[in-house]
Amino acid sequence: MKLWLPTSHAFMATPSAFRSVRRACSASSSLKWEGGVSMVQGASRGIGLLEKNDKGHVVATCRNPDRATGLVDLKDKFAERLNIVPLDLTIESTIEASAKFIREKYGSLNLLINASGILSIPNVLQPETTLSKVERSSLMLSYEVNAVGPILTIKHMWPLLKAGGGSGTERDVAVVANLSARVGSIGDNHLGGWHSYRSSKAALNQLTKNVSVEFTRRRDPIICILLHPGTVDTDLSKPFQRNVPEGKLFTKEFSVQKLLSIINNAKSHDNGKFFAWDGQEIPW
Amino acid sequence: MKLWLPTSHAFMATPSAFRSVRRACSASSSLKWEGGVSMVQGASRGIGLLEKNDKGHVVATCRNPDRATGLVDLKDKFAERLNIVPLDLTIESTIEASAKFIREKYGSLNLLINASGILSIPNVLQPETTLSKVERSSLMLSYEVNAVGPILTIKHMWPLLKAGGGSGTERDVAVVANLSARVGSIGDNHLGGWHSYRSSKAALNQLTKNVSVEFTRRRDPIICILLHPGTVDTDLSKPFQRNVPEGKLFTKEFSVQKLLSIINNAKSHDNGKFFAWDGQEIPW
Repeated sequence: MKLWLPTSHAFMATPSAFRSVRRACSASSSLKWEGGVSMVQGASRGIGLLEKNDKGHVVATCRNPDRATGLVDLKDKFAERLNIVPLDLTIESTIEASAKFIREKYGSLNLLINASGILSIPNVLQPETTLSKVERSSLMLSYEVNAVGPILTIKHMWPLLKAGGGSGTERDVAVVANLSARVGSIGDNHLGGWHSYRSSKAALNQLTKNVSVEFTRRRDPIICILLHPGTVDTDLSKPFQRNVPEGKLFTKEFSVQKLLSIINNAKSHDNGKFFAWDGQEIPW
Repeated sequence: MKLWLPTSHAFMATPSAFRSVRRACSASSSLKWEGGVSMVQGASRGIGLLEKNDKGHVVATCRNPDRATGLVDLKDKFAERLNIVPLDLTIESTIEASAKFIREKYGSLNLLINASGILSIPNVLQPETTLSKVERSSLMLSYEVNAVGPILTIKHMWPLLKAGGGSGTERDVAVVANLSARVGSIGDNHLGGWHSYRSSKAALNQLTKNVSVEFTRRRDPIICILLHPGTVDTDLSKPFQRNVPEGKLFTKEFSVQKLLSIINNAKSHDNGKFFAWDGQEIPW
């Protein structure tokens, strides 16, 4: 697998920005990227970060950049601020390569969104409707992609997030936002089914909580939160949309706007929490 | 792998027992084993079921019956009522073979205890003290043994549990008791660390909740509960005992007695709950 490497490095920090980062962030960062540097792991198309922010830099990762036509279109529009990098959650070396890319180009990271997730794959993975359809392979694959991949991504981005903190952004801290799902809540599970998906998301919730505890203990300028995007009109939800109540199937734009609002307003005391798109906390 | 097959079948049902099972359990069971039939998945030694109950039958499974000297000793004492069957959670065919053994010998099951679990294996699996030590292989192995194995065992024992219900026991229902751990609780996670173990147990909790919902929906005469045994003086806890407060390191006998008391007194309304050894509910 070959890394797609951009040909120009847009360095946008100004002398005054240098000073403010020294004030805002006592971490090892000596650079400040105006608008911040964000990584979206699992971005096969636009994720609103570039459109909503006229300065920030974005590293969008996906398994097959060549096939991510939505991202390529964005690249035409936001050339200098968008980097498209291949990352396959099941191949740790690609996660490491993404970290290397960010380290060399920016030296820091202010936001990591773990957006990828699998619920169903035709002929491979079917959300289970009953215990009798539960298979080892489905459980293992869902866990690997939905829980293991995100935690390994955080592990490799950790030094960059520490270096970044909130510098260049309006926040005091760097944010790791893991896309979870309300169906990952154990306390809120009244319907059953979808064993592989629910189980992997509950595990992701636990891993996120674990990471948040360590960030606090080490006084890292990072928080880690979980987000439930609502039911969004995507390929993931397509087969299951008929059961969604009227007005509860969101456009991507609506959901992204809500989630970015939670992320941009996140404070230290939000560390380790699980929020729905409307800002309500979801029980474990 | 070869199944150890006992040579005699101790059938203990009486005519009156036949009638009571027809009343108590409308499932397909037409047999009643006095004292019930219990399976302990992951029993490398005595688990108190035989000693506490002078009639019930026990199927004890472990990976290597030949090496389970504690079980072999029990076999001398409880010949007719104890069956030792090989079962490796990572090899589904051995789970199916165990189900076949129980189906052919007893036709029903009243209690399934999923007791196995891994936290550390010398040179293979170390409980993580920090995010930077988290490895894919540890996460996957812990999930496979602590979450996937138990749910597959329930899947294959489900028809037998349905046939058994509470017949032959003092309960109204069959019980699936999954040994979880307080550190699997997300809401109670204030220390972090042990990522692989915590994550796999949170996943087990979610899977158990899922199964409990289906048992209720189908009106099966089965409940599924989660148990936290406390910190018990076993090989699993040995490397971590120095941090256990005085009086909180339990003997196996004490913990088993407490857990069996919860199991024996379990009612339908306990379905899907997570209990500590003292009967207190643990948050998700």
